[in-house]
Amino acid sequence: MSGLSRRGLLGSLGAAGAGAAAIGFGTGRAVQDGDPASAGPPPTFDLYGEHQTGIVTPVQDRLHLASFDVLTDDREALVGLLRAWTAAAAEMMAGRPAGPDTSTYDRPPDDTGEAVGLPSSRLTITFGFGRSLFDDRFGLAGRLPAGLVDLPHFPGDNLDPARSGGDLCVQACADDPQVAVHAVRNLVRIGFGTVAVRWSQLGFGKTSSTTRDEQTPRNLFGFKDGTMNLKADEQPDLDEHVWVDDGSWLAGGSYLVARRINMTVETWDRQTLQEQEHVIGRTKTTGAPLSGGREHDDPDFVLEGSDGPLVHPDSHVALAHPSANAGVRLLRRGYNFVDGSNALGRLDAGLFFLAYVTDPRSHYIPIQTSISGNDLMQEYVQHTGSALFAVPGGIARGEYVGQRLFA
Amino acid sequence: MSGLSRRGLLGSLGAAGAGAAAIGFGTGRAVQDGDPASAGPPPTFDLYGEHQTGIVTPVQDRLHLASFDVLTDDREALVGLLRAWTAAAAEMMAGRPAGPDTSTYDRPPDDTGEAVGLPSSRLTITFGFGRSLFDDRFGLAGRLPAGLVDLPHFPGDNLDPARSGGDLCVQACADDPQVAVHAVRNLVRIGFGTVAVRWSQLGFGKTSSTTRDEQTPRNLFGFKDGTMNLKADEQPDLDEHVWVDDGSWLAGGSYLVARRINMTVETWDRQTLQEQEHVIGRTKTTGAPLSGGREHDDPDFVLEGSDGPLVHPDSHVALAHPSANAGVRLLRRGYNFVDGSNALGRLDAGLFFLAYVTDPRSHYIPIQTSISGNDLMQEYVQHTGSALFAVPGGIARGEYVGQRLFA
Repeated sequence: MSGLSRRGLLGSLGAAGAGAAAIGFGTGRAVQDGDPASAGPPPTFDLYGEHQTGIVTPVQDRLHLASFDVLTDDREALVGLLRAWTAAAAEMMAGRPAGPDTSTYDRPPDDTGEAVGLPSSRLTITFGFGRSLFDDRFGLAGRLPAGLVDLPHFPGDNLDPARSGGDLCVQACADDPQVAVHAVRNLVRIGFGTVAVRWSQLGFGKTSSTTRDEQTPRNLFGFKDGTMNLKADEQPDLDEHVWVDDGSWLAGGSYLVARRINMTVETWDRQTLQEQEHVIGRTKTTGAPLSGGREHDDPDFVLEGSDGPLVHPDSHVALAHPSANAGVRLLRRGYNFVDGSNALGRLDAGLFFLAYVTDPRSHYIPIQTSISGNDLMQEYVQHTGSALFAVPGGIARGEYVGQRLFA
Repeated sequence: MSGLSRRGLLGSLGAAGAGAAAIGFGTGRAVQDGDPASAGPPPTFDLYGEHQTGIVTPVQDRLHLASFDVLTDDREALVGLLRAWTAAAAEMMAGRPAGPDTSTYDRPPDDTGEAVGLPSSRLTITFGFGRSLFDDRFGLAGRLPAGLVDLPHFPGDNLDPARSGGDLCVQACADDPQVAVHAVRNLVRIGFGTVAVRWSQLGFGKTSSTTRDEQTPRNLFGFKDGTMNLKADEQPDLDEHVWVDDGSWLAGGSYLVARRINMTVETWDRQTLQEQEHVIGRTKTTGAPLSGGREHDDPDFVLEGSDGPLVHPDSHVALAHPSANAGVRLLRRGYNFVDGSNALGRLDAGLFFLAYVTDPRSHYIPIQTSISGNDLMQEYVQHTGSALFAVPGGIARGEYVGQRLFA
């Protein structure tokens, strides 16, 4: 291992970072090397590096993701916003206030204040660009990435336009939700007049991990989720399945697929354990495939019981498995959500699916077409929001996020 | 101090409690004695005790509160539900599954599973009864508590009926939101067919504490909140301001006032620091009164600057102070919330105000009348949900919650 490229201990952290030891290091690098665990979870991540943070970074516990409409058609105003967002994100990820001036009486503070005294909580802030940004407003039509397509309608989609799409997105992940919310809120503040929030989604529990040193989290079906998830130390696979490498402005970046998947948990909860395990293809307690073995053992899709294959070919594990999808593997970073209840008195709950892929045409559309058409699980889920963003590559010091797009 | 009345170490915890050391003790008692900190935060609370938990219990970081409509008019079905809820709550608070049978194939599991492997995270579950429960359905009309009034309309109220009222409420607080959500979701599951969720609210960051050994949390205005909050060790004041002592079935209980207070954070964020501090009456950084001193020093409402009193008489601290409210003190347990964004592209964010009071007629209506009519802060807030619940006293082993109401 070439090891952690630590950039040394930062000295003073300012008001917001009191008590947090800050270790800045190139996140893409450090995480890909796979040994951050040996140094314990780093208290802060550095915004700048080979890739954006919040992708292969070890998944934090909480999420606030916001999608924005740009209100101006002034290209320079958009660039100015991205420049200001980059600077503020770097400060907040280091555990400092979003801006320098928080105590001058006759102007609004450069930080809203609710994270003062809280540690940085492994905050990462990740930016993406939606397809609508590449219309005729900003002269970007010729630079639309090939993979930034309109996703097709999938069976079972019941998409709410007010929870879908957007020109820009900001994904803030942290172990403390107040820190994630603070980050989004300050970027909203900085963007006042230039952008408006189109929709935003909080997630309270991660459903996938990108490291091996923790147990697999559970989704609201009560099952372990993301057992097969691509891990941060699988370097060749990350290049194949996550990063864009096409020589374009997006090189070193990725695509973020965001799907709000409502689960009808009340209905699920009334199914027998047998039905639940049949649908998933794994045992509920341990997460082992129904063909036997342990959680991380490969399912045997051929092995028959008295009543056909032990792992049903339309079970979720069978349809989502790389062997059924031309070897495609996903790096997922989804979160459980509960947004109160709906008019029927059912919990408005489910999985906010987030996956970073090298190309949604090869890495999302085929798999979701297969799943939405056949998966036994479809009876218990409904997709209510959808968005796709091109996520620029890493930010070099002195640059702003996505600068190569505007060059 | 008479000390912690520990009831000894529980032995086996079952699947959900693996790794958590469980110390069961009478929560009302232990917390009122004020020295739980000396033993570290207890990993589990006991449902049974002199008072319900989740009131003076040290405030956990996360909240899920659900309000329910009862669907039946069968008194025995309601009692059966309360009995089943009590049993399940005791299990979950101890870090165990909600019910005993989680692995029989041909029936639905007695626990939904998403908290398996998570520690109990100081979970407390608190039950309350709304005024509508005392209509003619269950023969309870004659037992309506005197304080369970219809709250009046206050200036600035913009209440959404779909976020207000309810026959029953369940407040689940825990340091891990997945644990709080799991608790509510399993009570929903158990109540299927008997109750439906009317509304539910998640809170991601506490805004008040009931102990002295931590720093005061901040609300979404970025200010420390609840500096004056009633603390769990102020025994005579708890009897005066929190507990009901009227010889009725509600004796040993309390009233829970729940108000969903939206904050127009984008507007607030554009105000000068001077305006923000003027509205609150405290400094933003330290929380000290504008009359000087430190956070916990009493404000001096008489001290004049060059431009009148340093603490404006219509500032929030002045209007909410006990000296302006016949000595009334509040035990608050509120939480910050963000529920996405609204149709205007503003964050749907604010404070979910929770206060436990001995009588809302003396301890909420007068103070909210004064605040909503005069408080400078009213320009930046709007109440969008409201509920009031009678919270029964502690549950003795073998009883179900509220049993004395039905006796």
